[in-house]
Amino acid sequence: MRHFFKVDPAKVLSDPEVEALLNSDTDGFIIGGTDHVTAENAAFCYERFMGTDKALFLELSHTQMVLPFADQFLVPLVLNSPDSNFIVGQFSEALKRFSPHVPFKQIQPVGYMVLNGEAKVAQLTKANVALLKEDVAAYAELAERFLHLPVFYLEYSGKLGDASLVRYVKGKLQETELWYGGGIRSVRDARFMAEFADVIVVGNLIYENFSEALKTAEITR
Amino acid sequence: MRHFFKVDPAKVLSDPEVEALLNSDTDGFIIGGTDHVTAENAAFCYERFMGTDKALFLELSHTQMVLPFADQFLVPLVLNSPDSNFIVGQFSEALKRFSPHVPFKQIQPVGYMVLNGEAKVAQLTKANVALLKEDVAAYAELAERFLHLPVFYLEYSGKLGDASLVRYVKGKLQETELWYGGGIRSVRDARFMAEFADVIVVGNLIYENFSEALKTAEITR
Repeated sequence: MRHFFKVDPAKVLSDPEVEALLNSDTDGFIIGGTDHVTAENAAFCYERFMGTDKALFLELSHTQMVLPFADQFLVPLVLNSPDSNFIVGQFSEALKRFSPHVPFKQIQPVGYMVLNGEAKVAQLTKANVALLKEDVAAYAELAERFLHLPVFYLEYSGKLGDASLVRYVKGKLQETELWYGGGIRSVRDARFMAEFADVIVVGNLIYENFSEALKTAEITR
Repeated sequence: MRHFFKVDPAKVLSDPEVEALLNSDTDGFIIGGTDHVTAENAAFCYERFMGTDKALFLELSHTQMVLPFADQFLVPLVLNSPDSNFIVGQFSEALKRFSPHVPFKQIQPVGYMVLNGEAKVAQLTKANVALLKEDVAAYAELAERFLHLPVFYLEYSGKLGDASLVRYVKGKLQETELWYGGGIRSVRDARFMAEFADVIVVGNLIYENFSEALKTAEITR
């Protein structure tokens, strides 16, 4: 089990806070957000974490976030969006734009399930969130067995997910990692989800309760 | 370079014609079609070719075509459809329905580009056919480098494709095979497209000019 912090380029962190995150027990950082993310704030945010020896990902929800110097990119393919633009369309556009300079080895495509209908990302992608655990498991199998995606990501943004669903989906995956994000507001929540997911991602809590967010990283000890 | 015949379960072939196809120089058969395909006619058609030592695929455009006894399945993911149902939706439904009895080792997901706007499959999938060769190449790279699909299929159904596009796309692929289908009406057409594609697929010609269709298989000699 690993723990990542998700750092939003559009939100404010002080230098001591960045320092505390860098010195925490977390396994890495994902730089990414939904609103007001620009090339400028993404670059500024990424640079503050660049010195780390931990994993550092830039999540490419928008192609304007591409930074030439970033090491590893996460590309979320929103499998439960009815709009294929959020699965393949916008990324084929990006490949065309950056061809032939695309660093494929540094890119991890992520099978992404948007599961909280009230989240901004759900409204943006029009994701179908009315899913049974069997539906999500079928997407997980598709991600692993058809598309060979390294990561399958359950994103509940803002709401703690259904642990029985997380466990059920984990039982269907053999090689693809299961990442969980959303609604982790305490060490207890973090431990709870970490029981089933390979990676838990702590995001909003950084901005809501910094000291509690820091403590969630201790579950990796 | 290889040659496949695509046999439509909804169209008529006599026993001597099936025999001639089986004894031809082709490398294999794809059982599949767009209209009027049912579990019954797909099963009947598949059974007529089952004795072959050549490759034999059942193309799953509709999940009602699933045959429990088929050896190899092609699952076309229509990457240029705006409707994600034709990319991941309907197949995740099928995985759910057949779980846990899905023979993943026998399934080849195919990155499928529908390129003739007048074809039925283009109307069905609402595929965006207004694509430059750079657009198609970007989808090819996405299929190979993001999704690790074994096959990228250019489907011009009924119309001979743009050879310069086929050549350009072939130049972008290293591991994923490039299959070409559509509008091959003569040995000359077959040779022309076989210069760039790894596989050429001859379908309609079987029903339009059987002896010429048979001759196209000779290009494998």
